[in-house]
Amino acid sequence: MASTDKPDPEAIKSEALPPPAAPPCRSFNCSYVDVALRVLLFAAAVTAVVVMVTAKQTKVVPLPGSSVTAPVEAKFSDSPAFIYFVTALSVAGLYSILTTLASVSIILKPAYATKFLLHFVFSDVLMLGIVASATGTAGGVAYVGLKGNSHVRWGKVCNVYDKFCRHLGSSIAVALFASVLLVLLTMLSVFSIYRKIPK
Amino acid sequence: MASTDKPDPEAIKSEALPPPAAPPCRSFNCSYVDVALRVLLFAAAVTAVVVMVTAKQTKVVPLPGSSVTAPVEAKFSDSPAFIYFVTALSVAGLYSILTTLASVSIILKPAYATKFLLHFVFSDVLMLGIVASATGTAGGVAYVGLKGNSHVRWGKVCNVYDKFCRHLGSSIAVALFASVLLVLLTMLSVFSIYRKIPK
Repeated sequence: MASTDKPDPEAIKSEALPPPAAPPCRSFNCSYVDVALRVLLFAAAVTAVVVMVTAKQTKVVPLPGSSVTAPVEAKFSDSPAFIYFVTALSVAGLYSILTTLASVSIILKPAYATKFLLHFVFSDVLMLGIVASATGTAGGVAYVGLKGNSHVRWGKVCNVYDKFCRHLGSSIAVALFASVLLVLLTMLSVFSIYRKIPK
Repeated sequence: MASTDKPDPEAIKSEALPPPAAPPCRSFNCSYVDVALRVLLFAAAVTAVVVMVTAKQTKVVPLPGSSVTAPVEAKFSDSPAFIYFVTALSVAGLYSILTTLASVSIILKPAYATKFLLHFVFSDVLMLGIVASATGTAGGVAYVGLKGNSHVRWGKVCNVYDKFCRHLGSSIAVALFASVLLVLLTMLSVFSIYRKIPK
């Protein structure tokens, strides 16, 4: 009785598999949003890396223990925290290229969409952990550079190297945006999987 | 024809809803694993917070600009990075209590399991972002304390405050473990949702 008015989900699936017909999300196309977010993630990761790598500034400062002044350059590779940041965001940029291609392949061939989505969630969550921790690491060290720490006698850096610190701040802000994008991407993939469950 | 030998998933669902019969995962019980991981997350978060808060050490060190020595105490609240760390891990601990209760309620009443799982994923991902960034922030600042940074003349701290730094290191390691638990919890919830899709 129920089989006549309600279509069997298994039957629909086996019929829909051969031709790449409708995308996985019905009411609005999740795959297109997914691709757009991944392209945005790529742009954010590349921006963060470029802004961080170009954060170079040379200032004439007094050398320690003497009154002699000399030009000293500040660059991101002076701190392991910023090297980790650049590495993590570079990996995120590379990852976003690969997953954008995979996401486009879902649009072209939606047969394996669910399996792809599952792998997207697993890898997006891992990448979120890496990008969020890198943002935190760089942010923590940059904050010490901005405010100093009188308890351990770490002096401020940003009152001298102002342009350098503006680069750091912008790069960290963009990386934070990339983390938010990864959260949204994970939620979108999970929601796409959730919508496939028959109600 | 197919409806006679294969049971309709919708029919099963509507029949299974009233009595809390089988848990969402069939072959092994995901809900019990979920509860266990959340209890472990609670233990990890509490351990990280307690070890960080008890990281206090007093040493007699020379005061800056003079040869006079005085006892100076190092504590976690000397650095905003460690305050953020304690706040984030406290929130994670509280969150783990709430979600453990929610996860137990799924075992007792599996009718709304899928909706709960969806909310679990969304909140677990957010919590992962917070815990991972807090671990990164504390780790970045603790690393500067361990190695110093000659470029910006930030001296080492851990050669004097050895016990303090051991506490920091242990706390950050436990927080890293908590981040891994959150990744596993997200994956488990997503996989539980994925398994509900009829093949």
